[in-house]
Amino acid sequence: MAGSIYGNIFKISTWGESHGKALGVTIDGCPAGLELSEEYIQSFLNRRKPGQNKYQTPRKESDRVEILSGVFEGVTTGTPISLIVYNQDQHSKDYGNLAECYRPGHADYCFDKKYGIRDYRGGGRSSGRETIGRVAAGAIATKILNELGIEIKAYVKSIGPHVINYNNFNFDSIANNSVSMPDEECAKKAEKYLDSLINSNDSTGSCVECIINNMPIGIGEPVFNKLDAMLSHGIMSIGAVKAIEIGDGVNASTSVGSINNDPFRIKDDKVIKTTNHAGGILGGMSDGSQIVLRAHFKPTPSIFSPQDTIDKYNNEVNISIRGRHDPIIGPRAVVVVESMCAITILDLLMLNANSKMDNLAKIYK
Amino acid sequence: MAGSIYGNIFKISTWGESHGKALGVTIDGCPAGLELSEEYIQSFLNRRKPGQNKYQTPRKESDRVEILSGVFEGVTTGTPISLIVYNQDQHSKDYGNLAECYRPGHADYCFDKKYGIRDYRGGGRSSGRETIGRVAAGAIATKILNELGIEIKAYVKSIGPHVINYNNFNFDSIANNSVSMPDEECAKKAEKYLDSLINSNDSTGSCVECIINNMPIGIGEPVFNKLDAMLSHGIMSIGAVKAIEIGDGVNASTSVGSINNDPFRIKDDKVIKTTNHAGGILGGMSDGSQIVLRAHFKPTPSIFSPQDTIDKYNNEVNISIRGRHDPIIGPRAVVVVESMCAITILDLLMLNANSKMDNLAKIYK
Amino acid sequence: MAGSIYGNIFKISTWGESHGKALGVTIDGCPAGLELSEEYIQSFLNRRKPGQNKYQTPRKESDRVEILSGVFEGVTTGTPISLIVYNQDQHSKDYGNLAECYRPGHADYCFDKKYGIRDYRGGGRSSGRETIGRVAAGAIATKILNELGIEIKAYVKSIGPHVINYNNFNFDSIANNSVSMPDEECAKKAEKYLDSLINSNDSTGSCVECIINNMPIGIGEPVFNKLDAMLSHGIMSIGAVKAIEIGDGVNASTSVGSINNDPFRIKDDKVIKTTNHAGGILGGMSDGSQIVLRAHFKPTPSIFSPQDTIDKYNNEVNISIRGRHDPIIGPRAVVVVESMCAITILDLLMLNANSKMDNLAKIYK
Amino acid sequence: MAGSIYGNIFKISTWGESHGKALGVTIDGCPAGLELSEEYIQSFLNRRKPGQNKYQTPRKESDRVEILSGVFEGVTTGTPISLIVYNQDQHSKDYGNLAECYRPGHADYCFDKKYGIRDYRGGGRSSGRETIGRVAAGAIATKILNELGIEIKAYVKSIGPHVINYNNFNFDSIANNSVSMPDEECAKKAEKYLDSLINSNDSTGSCVECIINNMPIGIGEPVFNKLDAMLSHGIMSIGAVKAIEIGDGVNASTSVGSINNDPFRIKDDKVIKTTNHAGGILGGMSDGSQIVLRAHFKPTPSIFSPQDTIDKYNNEVNISIRGRHDPIIGPRAVVVVESMCAITILDLLMLNANSKMDNLAKIYK
Repeated sequence: MAGSIYGNIFKISTWGESHGKALGVTIDGCPAGLELSEEYIQSFLNRRKPGQNKYQTPRKESDRVEILSGVFEGVTTGTPISLIVYNQDQHSKDYGNLAECYRPGHADYCFDKKYGIRDYRGGGRSSGRETIGRVAAGAIATKILNELGIEIKAYVKSIGPHVINYNNFNFDSIANNSVSMPDEECAKKAEKYLDSLINSNDSTGSCVECIINNMPIGIGEPVFNKLDAMLSHGIMSIGAVKAIEIGDGVNASTSVGSINNDPFRIKDDKVIKTTNHAGGILGGMSDGSQIVLRAHFKPTPSIFSPQDTIDKYNNEVNISIRGRHDPIIGPRAVVVVESMCAITILDLLMLNANSKMDNLAKIYK
Repeated sequence: MAGSIYGNIFKISTWGESHGKALGVTIDGCPAGLELSEEYIQSFLNRRKPGQNKYQTPRKESDRVEILSGVFEGVTTGTPISLIVYNQDQHSKDYGNLAECYRPGHADYCFDKKYGIRDYRGGGRSSGRETIGRVAAGAIATKILNELGIEIKAYVKSIGPHVINYNNFNFDSIANNSVSMPDEECAKKAEKYLDSLINSNDSTGSCVECIINNMPIGIGEPVFNKLDAMLSHGIMSIGAVKAIEIGDGVNASTSVGSINNDPFRIKDDKVIKTTNHAGGILGGMSDGSQIVLRAHFKPTPSIFSPQDTIDKYNNEVNISIRGRHDPIIGPRAVVVVESMCAITILDLLMLNANSKMDNLAKIYK
Repeated sequence: MAGSIYGNIFKISTWGESHGKALGVTIDGCPAGLELSEEYIQSFLNRRKPGQNKYQTPRKESDRVEILSGVFEGVTTGTPISLIVYNQDQHSKDYGNLAECYRPGHADYCFDKKYGIRDYRGGGRSSGRETIGRVAAGAIATKILNELGIEIKAYVKSIGPHVINYNNFNFDSIANNSVSMPDEECAKKAEKYLDSLINSNDSTGSCVECIINNMPIGIGEPVFNKLDAMLSHGIMSIGAVKAIEIGDGVNASTSVGSINNDPFRIKDDKVIKTTNHAGGILGGMSDGSQIVLRAHFKPTPSIFSPQDTIDKYNNEVNISIRGRHDPIIGPRAVVVVESMCAITILDLLMLNANSKMDNLAKIYK
Repeated sequence: MAGSIYGNIFKISTWGESHGKALGVTIDGCPAGLELSEEYIQSFLNRRKPGQNKYQTPRKESDRVEILSGVFEGVTTGTPISLIVYNQDQHSKDYGNLAECYRPGHADYCFDKKYGIRDYRGGGRSSGRETIGRVAAGAIATKILNELGIEIKAYVKSIGPHVINYNNFNFDSIANNSVSMPDEECAKKAEKYLDSLINSNDSTGSCVECIINNMPIGIGEPVFNKLDAMLSHGIMSIGAVKAIEIGDGVNASTSVGSINNDPFRIKDDKVIKTTNHAGGILGGMSDGSQIVLRAHFKPTPSIFSPQDTIDKYNNEVNISIRGRHDPIIGPRAVVVVESMCAITILDLLMLNANSKMDNLAKIYK
């Protein structure tokens, strides 16, 4: 399974299965001289921790992170940072009945065909717990970006048919509801919707929006490693994401040029754009305005209703999934989306350090 | 500009500006033993060539491809394949007035800020002509995939408000209209819409859909290099794409699990899924059913109406773009979407060759 | 510190400092279906474990390896394999006096200048303990190669002036002496030489030779990723190696073509070469004969005699190194050389799986 | 043939066969703002051009380089730089008799086994002409390094048994003799030696030494991407190199620590080392002193004496090689060694730009 390493300069290598001993990540290429503590990383992991409200799996995991290397006297040394989280509350027995059959909407069938073997306990490497490594690494990337003035904020924009109203937008309120929505009114409706789905043993899709402020201009490499292409790679690599939009996204395909083009103007001696249909990215590079992107998550595939499927002997069977599962993915994925954005942007920022002779001269002359 | 190389095993390296001497691509990692001719590659390039109908820039380019290396007596040798296309019909003077000002919706401003210098003639490296290298390499990737039985087909699904009706779907008809739509009726409406936009000096967005048949199961690497993540990277790296959808895409976020999950069944002794909301990808791996994805293109940013913008001295100015530009990007991008899919899938297919001990044994024992 | 990840398909990511909590490695890209146990990996680590005889640091480390992921019911699943070894017998106080001064022959000075910070305890990331990750990953690579019939054997060829006599060559005898030499007589002389160096608080250089049997033909990629170039990269990345030779190595530069060219002949219906000056590699590809390479290690830089150096304030000082150090590096590096060869060759073997259309057809048709 | 791309940030992609239409290189990741002309690059290519004296193949090639992209008004723009050199004086007929038999010391046999097909004309991709791309890219890397104050100089240190005497060392004199030796007296002896070898239809090995002055401290990444490991990779990837030494090289294995350790001292308020056994690299990082390395080249394998070999049907045959070949590789490889050092060092220099938070702050704050 090539594919558990991400990034070109700021490289992260994640590992671990849902029901194995532990999960973790190693970050290679983190600059030296960054203050870093376990508490700081923990604060990010706590945001994705299960069991925090009734819309989340009751699996109890403290998800306590430990720094094993790369930090000396509270500061990064430039050597690889190894982070580990031990698994605790595993109910592997819940999955015994899944050893031989393929859950619809899950990776089970593909795993068996690709590798000829599969750790069937809890989704193995395709479990939501795989994101622990992303978030732990994302915490570090976020800290570096913050020190350079860049801010990343994600939130749930919609749950099923319930979409936030930007007139009610209050980012800080996402901590006040159990669905990470920045619109209290919408959050309440969404919670009711979730209650009804839980009652009917069903689940729902959702949309997470992410905004990034204070981006330097010119981040992203034209052609194949455009900022939007790299962000799409990172975001689409999160389990259950089925679409990614930048700026106006799918609506750009029904717009016209005279509207979609964002005019440049000068305001207070600064370059601004009077609109931001582009979502802050032009020609694959950041244009200095706010970056806006959306990730669309499919409904949690683990539902408790009986479902048609097959087993590994090609028998048609009907399964009822047990175990502990969220009825929605978006709210707990908010911090994962932020993390993938942070890692991706930091990596491109580091690459961009070599874009012109002037930059090299700043460092070596 | 790191970022003009794409792929991990089947690697392509593209180069060339809109108004430079030539454009080209080098493919490193193409397997030996593939029959390959200039004529074959040319047939792909002809599909993206300008000036073929009234909805395309009248720039006249024969876009004649030449194989400079890597092919001996009509067969690939395993060495790098270098392909070159010389530029011919350049009207660089059209761009003289753009040397000092930034076109809205274009990369001009970002280029200047990132590199401190910019080839202002015709978009330079961000021109649509940059896709020549993608398509030439895509032709080769497609040939290899075809020999393994895999087929890739793209078409225009919508232009502005005009969306194809799948009841009228006839893939072969895309060659009969000037907008690459597989629905004759819709194509006519779309052509009228384009006529009206040309009259009003405006442009439109569009959506290209791509389907891939006969995929082996298990292609794509779980976690960061999921098939959908890699395809998103490749597709979003095409200029003007603002959103990418897999299967149900954005609609997955408003669906429920009991509908969105595709049940596995057995039909004629084969595994099938009775629906395909997932678009042929589960857990980041191909599941054996048809892969379906959509790329949403923004309207061509080069429009002939006067527009507000700024120049490089931060003066507010009003520009009228000259030059030769398509009023829509989608139809000519169909073959580009196919190409990026082919390159991406082939690369993952080659990586997958090492997924299990059995495969290694097939080759080395 | 980009640079702790190695390989292109079989990728290893190592981490950990000499005096940190633990060291480890994650292998991404290991094929599924390989039987693997902690005991097997342990047998490799035991070969590099300290404190096994008087020529090795008395640091007591059980160096017990634990598999944290990637193995299910004794078989690799294709997911990343995370291996960890906890540090135990750390005497960090021994290094307190080194916090502010730079040991000659060590990386201390460069670390401080590069990163602005340094974990001064026991060499940090430049300690010999860094090789734990290499050897653990090398054990896995070796197992795969062995299953394909390839064998790798390294041994100490010379210690200071004492060079083995190939007339006495007996590979199995390397376990019988404390210097890993396949010539008992030479080993005895070398041991005496080491005794004298220990008495004079000095250390010695050494040469490790490695032979690889049953290589498939054509492994290695012409041009930049030649088999010899990749092996040189891997071997030279081992701390203290100052030269690498393939086949006749440095002597090739004083030879003539009529001697240095190895004639091809047929023997028992098989292609052979009557000599092997090339060391089994032609044009950067394995030629089917035995691969032969040599790594030259400098003397252990940590010696107990007083030495001239400077401190971080640019004062000239005189230091006497404490701590526990081997008077020679070669014998314990034998398994490290084997490991880097195994990892490098396996990675190229996996890449080579896609060298021709025939191979793709074997897997996908 | 994965393996024709080199570098991580400053990436070069070379292509072209000895007897194909052309050869070339594309550089992706060259910083913008560098003045660059064809004349400058040509001056490097002229140093490796054939036919300049009697010890070089009489093949007549003007090897005229053309810049196809990436340079606008004499300055690099940050986009990929494509360079091309057309082949002219090809005598492909000379090679007709080699289509079916394998030259000893050449890659022919391995190519056939690896790819199942081979361009037998003049060595194809394994010809010395492959280095055109390296040298063209090396010219650019050298220019950037020079602007940062770094200087790279290579020369022939020995030819067969004739080794330069450092008491006679005069770098500028390498242009005065036909063997690129910085010792006139030794050069004369070496020329006589070459005359005798030409008479006897034989060839000789040689050693090229390279020194690098004014290196910033800390370049190179500890662990796998050590400066010496990366240089070894680059140098060993040059055809015919069989050994690489850093500093004392192979002699380090017979030295003792008390001699081999280079003491740090202060001189004129600067850090110096009183000796340089390490060749300017400690722990895989540049230590600020002169970098010294040596590449050992085997004798040219193409000799005109009859040789034993086999053909592709496994018949034993005797061949006499025709064509035009140098009796020695070293002198023309001097500029190739410099080029690979320049490319490798620049790439690590660019990577190092992100080694600490301070550097990021210099660029982004």
